[in-house]
Amino acid sequence: MTFNINDIKSPDFIKDLNIEQLNNLCADIRSFILENVSKTGGHLSSNLGSVEAIVAMHYCFNSPHDKFIFDVSHQAYTHKILTGRSKDFVNLRKKDGLSGFCSYEESEHDIWESGHSSTSIAAAAGIIESGNVKDNIVVFIGDGSIQNGICFEAMNYIGSEKNQKVILIVNDNSMSISKNVGRMARRFSKFRIKKSYTNLKRIVPGFMKKGLIRLQNSMRTFVYGSNIFSSLGYKYFGPIDGHNISELIQYFNYAKKSSDSLVIHIQTEKGHGYEPAITDNFGVWHGVGPFNLETGEIYRKDNVISWSDCISKIIEDKLEENEDIKIICPATLTGSKLLECKEKYKERVIDCGINEELACVLASSMSRFGRIPIISIYSTFFQRCYDYLNNDCARQNNHVIFLLDRSGIIGGDGATHQGIFDIAMTSHIPNITIAMPKDNVEARLLVDYAIKGDGPFIIRYPKEDIKLDEYLDEYLVDDKNYQIDNIARWPIIKEIQDINIISYGPSLIKFKKLIEDNNCNKINIGLINARIIKPIDFETVQLLRNKKVYVYEEVVRNGSLYSMLIDLNNEYKLNIDFEFFGINNEFVTSLGSKDEIKEELGLREIDLITKINNNNNN
Amino acid sequence: MTFNINDIKSPDFIKDLNIEQLNNLCADIRSFILENVSKTGGHLSSNLGSVEAIVAMHYCFNSPHDKFIFDVSHQAYTHKILTGRSKDFVNLRKKDGLSGFCSYEESEHDIWESGHSSTSIAAAAGIIESGNVKDNIVVFIGDGSIQNGICFEAMNYIGSEKNQKVILIVNDNSMSISKNVGRMARRFSKFRIKKSYTNLKRIVPGFMKKGLIRLQNSMRTFVYGSNIFSSLGYKYFGPIDGHNISELIQYFNYAKKSSDSLVIHIQTEKGHGYEPAITDNFGVWHGVGPFNLETGEIYRKDNVISWSDCISKIIEDKLEENEDIKIICPATLTGSKLLECKEKYKERVIDCGINEELACVLASSMSRFGRIPIISIYSTFFQRCYDYLNNDCARQNNHVIFLLDRSGIIGGDGATHQGIFDIAMTSHIPNITIAMPKDNVEARLLVDYAIKGDGPFIIRYPKEDIKLDEYLDEYLVDDKNYQIDNIARWPIIKEIQDINIISYGPSLIKFKKLIEDNNCNKINIGLINARIIKPIDFETVQLLRNKKVYVYEEVVRNGSLYSMLIDLNNEYKLNIDFEFFGINNEFVTSLGSKDEIKEELGLREIDLITKINNNNNN
Repeated sequence: MTFNINDIKSPDFIKDLNIEQLNNLCADIRSFILENVSKTGGHLSSNLGSVEAIVAMHYCFNSPHDKFIFDVSHQAYTHKILTGRSKDFVNLRKKDGLSGFCSYEESEHDIWESGHSSTSIAAAAGIIESGNVKDNIVVFIGDGSIQNGICFEAMNYIGSEKNQKVILIVNDNSMSISKNVGRMARRFSKFRIKKSYTNLKRIVPGFMKKGLIRLQNSMRTFVYGSNIFSSLGYKYFGPIDGHNISELIQYFNYAKKSSDSLVIHIQTEKGHGYEPAITDNFGVWHGVGPFNLETGEIYRKDNVISWSDCISKIIEDKLEENEDIKIICPATLTGSKLLECKEKYKERVIDCGINEELACVLASSMSRFGRIPIISIYSTFFQRCYDYLNNDCARQNNHVIFLLDRSGIIGGDGATHQGIFDIAMTSHIPNITIAMPKDNVEARLLVDYAIKGDGPFIIRYPKEDIKLDEYLDEYLVDDKNYQIDNIARWPIIKEIQDINIISYGPSLIKFKKLIEDNNCNKINIGLINARIIKPIDFETVQLLRNKKVYVYEEVVRNGSLYSMLIDLNNEYKLNIDFEFFGINNEFVTSLGSKDEIKEELGLREIDLITKINNNNNN
Repeated sequence: MTFNINDIKSPDFIKDLNIEQLNNLCADIRSFILENVSKTGGHLSSNLGSVEAIVAMHYCFNSPHDKFIFDVSHQAYTHKILTGRSKDFVNLRKKDGLSGFCSYEESEHDIWESGHSSTSIAAAAGIIESGNVKDNIVVFIGDGSIQNGICFEAMNYIGSEKNQKVILIVNDNSMSISKNVGRMARRFSKFRIKKSYTNLKRIVPGFMKKGLIRLQNSMRTFVYGSNIFSSLGYKYFGPIDGHNISELIQYFNYAKKSSDSLVIHIQTEKGHGYEPAITDNFGVWHGVGPFNLETGEIYRKDNVISWSDCISKIIEDKLEENEDIKIICPATLTGSKLLECKEKYKERVIDCGINEELACVLASSMSRFGRIPIISIYSTFFQRCYDYLNNDCARQNNHVIFLLDRSGIIGGDGATHQGIFDIAMTSHIPNITIAMPKDNVEARLLVDYAIKGDGPFIIRYPKEDIKLDEYLDEYLVDDKNYQIDNIARWPIIKEIQDINIISYGPSLIKFKKLIEDNNCNKINIGLINARIIKPIDFETVQLLRNKKVYVYEEVVRNGSLYSMLIDLNNEYKLNIDFEFFGINNEFVTSLGSKDEIKEELGLREIDLITKINNNNNN
């Protein structure tokens, strides 16, 4: 029996299936996911790994009455399929298409939106505390996510009062985004290899009877040693084969009847059913672009490298040059292309897991004891550092360098992953320098400058490609703008005119080309590179008195460079006619590619040039 | 033998003392602390409770070679005394005086500054990862603080690699700031009452021999059940009597020699040695003003109530009026005067412990299931919510009300406790309303308005007193400005003139008085109440075209109301001459009372009036 996945309207039909049919359904879902993601790209490994578990959840529980919370919710494709969204998979992560994450708009079965990790158990606590839900609350969370502090807070919290029950399904595939780390991970891996467990399973094959469960419950400490869940008073079961649907069903049904909170620790194989993803040790198949289903070849663009590649090369050189430097990265080594650095420099490149808070304080403290820590972190996840950045780093003027990958507008992931807040979030905090390079040589210069300096230093860079013909050979550059002593000065790329653009980052390259290609109806436009966004190069700003200046930024408005510039303008009466070309505070990004979002915002570089042309023609 | 506490220059002398002398020293330190804090105010209970433990730390270890990290560091008075700072206690928490927390400037023995809770273990991880410290790293942390997520992250992290050793002294006085909550706290209290422990102690009196420790180590699961520390693989000892100096010394010496990370769980009596503080179940003696040492009477000001009192009264009324409302408070029930509410409304007032992250997500989730959650939180601790506020609350436009206690400049605690960042931290995030009432009636109106609305709503209020003659009886007010339909409009308190002041909060009352008392050399000054800080009342702003407007705020500059106003001014060419009267981004607050800090900043209300006068005379 095979299913027409596209015909599924609701998960109700599942309850009538027998085990064999359920297994067939799982196989069909897996093929469906593979086929679609090979065309659209998306999160693959985790979705292949979670098929049986999510089918079993829908078999045992009644969504949306029972509340399913998927942590991060990048692994919920099977849930989306079973709740009637199969036909939208052709537009996965695309404009007006299907979100890669749970979405209130898409379905009543999506009762919690996240995108950032580790909020699921806290969200469950909120549902419990609402007092308005009497049904089951089922959290599905990965072994990497659960190690973030807020999960501990929420696990510690739930059960403070009586009748606070939650079912936690911990999906353990021994890999969160990259490898997970820490004592808990080691404990997980101990579970995995514990021979006594295998033996026990052999003695009691199939599902344990209820009496045995009670026994096993009291035995678990004996069998596995204590673990974090049992130490917090949760009933703990596991590890259970996360691809064995009948075993999953039996445990889930037990959990449903139990009056206590419990943890069901399932063990799944990342990428289950697809060999290239199974044998991937580095998380390459975690989030992937389109690929050849037959060969497993991931399609790559020619003649480009990513900004992440570019920055990782610089990091590698700095590790070589300066022994005091250490890299700290919260679980994004793969995404930020730092695996080779890790391989080469081992303990000087620290993957601290999905613990952004820890990363920030650890680095601050390290900097006070003779090291120069560099944190590699996505702009959106950097948001978790606010208080630590402010109080533990910047207030103390600690010398910590933050490399913000995926700054600016981000395609594919939607509103939860935009790198548009970091400048507003930091520009009011003492001692912080904020910078963005337009090209690889400037990136290198900024990193050198940050290393030479003291105090916190943020270097942001986009999720974009660098065309190889724009990748500069630093040894050929003979330009005072590329000398480190001049780094704090804003290069004037195109001579100051009556109309000018100030921006930072690779957009400057596009603007230069647009201006030079005579897209401007012969209007002369000045172009200034605000590579150090804060502190502002006041000398250069003063040259703009009485001029029109567009400030182009892929960030939110209040707290942006524009914000700081109009403040100077107001304070020193410079009479500069500034205009913001960026993102309004109230805008919540929708789905789409970076270019599509920019088009929706009217924020493509060409849009500004067109506006200047139009203004000038009127 | 008594010690002259004021003669202590360094902790070296301690090592020559015997147990009796050490006990005498502790008694003297305790008297010294009591006497001083009764005059200056300060953190009392925790400092009385930790005397023996800190003396034993300095006896067993060699600070500053061994690194002492005090979590929060409000409990480090004994450490300050032993490291030669006794004579400065007369100026505790005062301008140019002794900080209430550890301070790099004060002593080489203070190797980590914090102020906010729970960063200590992460800081220890940083010292370890620096690779530059071969001595012991000793963390002293309370049972409330250790339940924050970043502690779990750091405990989980340390030990990922070999040779990563930390000694954690967990000071358990069954009370963090108020009561601590959650499963871990319950486990703690189980330890406390566990009879088998008492029995074991009786069988093996005094210090256990080494062999026995090893045995106890393997026995501890048996004796106490598993606990979170042992489940993470830490050697765990406890609970140990935290006032028994010889027992402390023996455990600390053992910890010194151990090659493993370990947790020494000490049990202390909050306020030990001072009856009023011992019998305090509510944390009133946690941080206290001057008091009568004999009677235990805390001196109170006449004819004032605090803003916290005022807001708590409103909260109580709202709980009465609307059953959907629930209060969430991260461990600051006492400080924010919510104990009576808690007493009266029990499970509708949730103390979630020092878990600000949890508080924010829990509330967001609760709001989606039919509740109206109100989070009561200090402005400075609200900083821990940034990502959750942005991603889990505001992006989703969840209806959560944040009451920010201690907003604005804060006296006594220094730079780590200022409520000056909240507006800049939130004014760029979608959907958020930010408000500040000038008086109790406006506070009530704003709370009503927030409850009626949807989306996230921030109401900030200061750590100040309200004079009873300024405490309005809401039933007598017959003013359109105090009608809820007009709340979004900015009241014009003093008619618009050529020179005007825009502000929000109680400063407006001072300005009104200064203007009316004719402190202005007969210069007419308009006064506008920007009680809804965001979104701005654009209609009222337009009335200010071509005028001079001072924007007076006790917050940092970039991202402030001023920031938003000059943006409007620039965008709509209103030609308003705005001038910022607030805190520059790069300013790090020093010690002192609120008035002293404002004077240092030139930010007293009278300073602005004087400036206007001077400008007008020139």
